[in-house]
Amino acid sequence: MRVIYAQTDRMNVVYYSRYYEFFEAARSALLRRIGIPYTELEKEGYMLPVVESHCRYHGTATFEDELTIESHMDETPKAKLKISYKVFKPGRDDPIVTGYTVHSFTNARMRPVRAPAMFLERLEAYSGQALED
Amino acid sequence: MRVIYAQTDRMNVVYYSRYYEFFEAARSALLRRIGIPYTELEKEGYMLPVVESHCRYHGTATFEDELTIESHMDETPKAKLKISYKVFKPGRDDPIVTGYTVHSFTNARMRPVRAPAMFLERLEAYSGQALED
Amino acid sequence: MRVIYAQTDRMNVVYYSRYYEFFEAARSALLRRIGIPYTELEKEGYMLPVVESHCRYHGTATFEDELTIESHMDETPKAKLKISYKVFKPGRDDPIVTGYTVHSFTNARMRPVRAPAMFLERLEAYSGQALED
Amino acid sequence: MRVIYAQTDRMNVVYYSRYYEFFEAARSALLRRIGIPYTELEKEGYMLPVVESHCRYHGTATFEDELTIESHMDETPKAKLKISYKVFKPGRDDPIVTGYTVHSFTNARMRPVRAPAMFLERLEAYSGQALED
Repeated sequence: MRVIYAQTDRMNVVYYSRYYEFFEAARSALLRRIGIPYTELEKEGYMLPVVESHCRYHGTATFEDELTIESHMDETPKAKLKISYKVFKPGRDDPIVTGYTVHSFTNARMRPVRAPAMFLERLEAYSGQALED
Repeated sequence: MRVIYAQTDRMNVVYYSRYYEFFEAARSALLRRIGIPYTELEKEGYMLPVVESHCRYHGTATFEDELTIESHMDETPKAKLKISYKVFKPGRDDPIVTGYTVHSFTNARMRPVRAPAMFLERLEAYSGQALED
Repeated sequence: MRVIYAQTDRMNVVYYSRYYEFFEAARSALLRRIGIPYTELEKEGYMLPVVESHCRYHGTATFEDELTIESHMDETPKAKLKISYKVFKPGRDDPIVTGYTVHSFTNARMRPVRAPAMFLERLEAYSGQALED
Repeated sequence: MRVIYAQTDRMNVVYYSRYYEFFEAARSALLRRIGIPYTELEKEGYMLPVVESHCRYHGTATFEDELTIESHMDETPKAKLKISYKVFKPGRDDPIVTGYTVHSFTNARMRPVRAPAMFLERLEAYSGQALED
C-alpha cells in the first residue's frame, strides 16, 4: 500500500483514522486467504459489523511511503471475532501502528447470531494448513 | 462548515475531492429546503445518482476556515438535474471553488426514469415562493 | 452534524472510521470553547498528535441522522491529554458510539514536550468557570 | 485496486468523489513511471495543485471489484498539465468512469511558474522510449 496525498493531513502524516481503512483492506484480504471472502459471508446472510476499534500510533507515515499491513485473527471466534493489525514501513522493524477491531456476527437485519458453522470449518481447515507450512 | 484536519492534506489545504463532499451536504440541504428531502425521494423509489461532476479551484481553504457553500438548481430538470455550487471563505468576495454535479433520475434498480411529477410540482411551488420573496 | 451519503457504507450505516472525524470536529470545538484553539497552539509551536484512539459501537447511524457529539477532557493533562466522546442520535438516550483519543504534546518537530503552561492555565480558568455555572 | 467497504455508500456503489482519490494514485504512478516522482518535484521546490477536476460516471463499481485505472498525459504541458483517467472493471470493455484533472505548476508558496525544464526533459525522454516500444 502506497500512501497517497488524500491520506495525509497538514501535519504531513497519514491522518489517524485512515489506518482503519487500511485495517479494513487487510481484514478483507485475510478473509479471502482463509477462503471466506466477505462477499460470500454476505450472500449466506451474515454480516460482520465492527463493535470496537482501537489503534496505537508509535510512529508516522507520509506521502509515498510503502506500508505493509499484517493482520491476524486472535483466537477461535464464538459470538465475536477479534482481528489484530500491525502496520510497517520500510527501514523500521517495529510497527508504526498497531490496532485491533472486534466484530460481531449478525444476520442481514443486524441481529447478533453465532459464528456460522461454515466460517468455523474453513477457519479450522486454514489453521491446519498454516501449521503444516 | 468549519474545515477539520481530516480534510486537509500535506499541502496544508483542503484536499481537492473533499469539496465534492461539501457539495453533497449543500445538495441535500437544497432538496430539503425545496421540500423534497432525498430520503423521501428514496422512499418513493427514486434515486439521483451522480453522472457527472466538475470543480474549478480558484483559491484554497485550510484548517478551521469557515466555509459557506451556495447551491443552485440551474434549470427545470427533465431527465437530468444539474446543480451548481460556490464555496466562499470569509474575507473574500469571489468563491474559492465553483463546481457542478449532474444527476439522472433513476428507479431503485438504477434504471433511468423521468423526473417524478411530485418533484417537479414541489420545485415549481418553491420557485413561486422564491419569486415572491 | 447531519450524516451525509459520503459517510455511509453499503451496510447503510456510517462507516466505522468516520466517527473519528466527528471526534476531531468535537475536539477542536472543545479546545476553542476552553479558549485554546488548536491553530493558536500550533502558532506557539505545539502539536497534539494522536497516540491512541478507541471506539465502541453500540448502535448505528444512517443518512440524514442528526448526530450530537459530546466531548470531555478526562483529567488534568501532564504529558498526555485524554479526550472522551459520546455520539447521540435523536430519540435515543444512550450514546450510539463512545470513544476516546489520547494525545501527546509535542513541539513542531514532533518531539514530546510537557503540556505548555498557557494550556494548563486556560484549562484551569475554564474549569473554574464551568464550576460556577 | 480492490474496492473496500469504506469506499462504498448506501447505494452500494463507490461514492462519486472516491474516484478522485483513485485518480491521484494513478497520477502519482504515472509521474513515477516517467521518472519524475512527485516527492522529487516537491524537493525541487515545485508543486502541482489541482486547478480543475472532472468526472463522468458511465457505470458503477462495488465492494471487492478489482478496478484498473489508466492515466494519460494529454499534451506537452506549458503552464498547465492535463491528465486524463479511465477506470475499468473486469468483464466490461468500456470504462465505467472517465475524467481528468488540470494542474498548474507552482513554487512552494503556490505562485504559478512555468513547467520546470527538468520535468519537460524527462517527459520528452519518456515519450521517446514509449515510441520505441
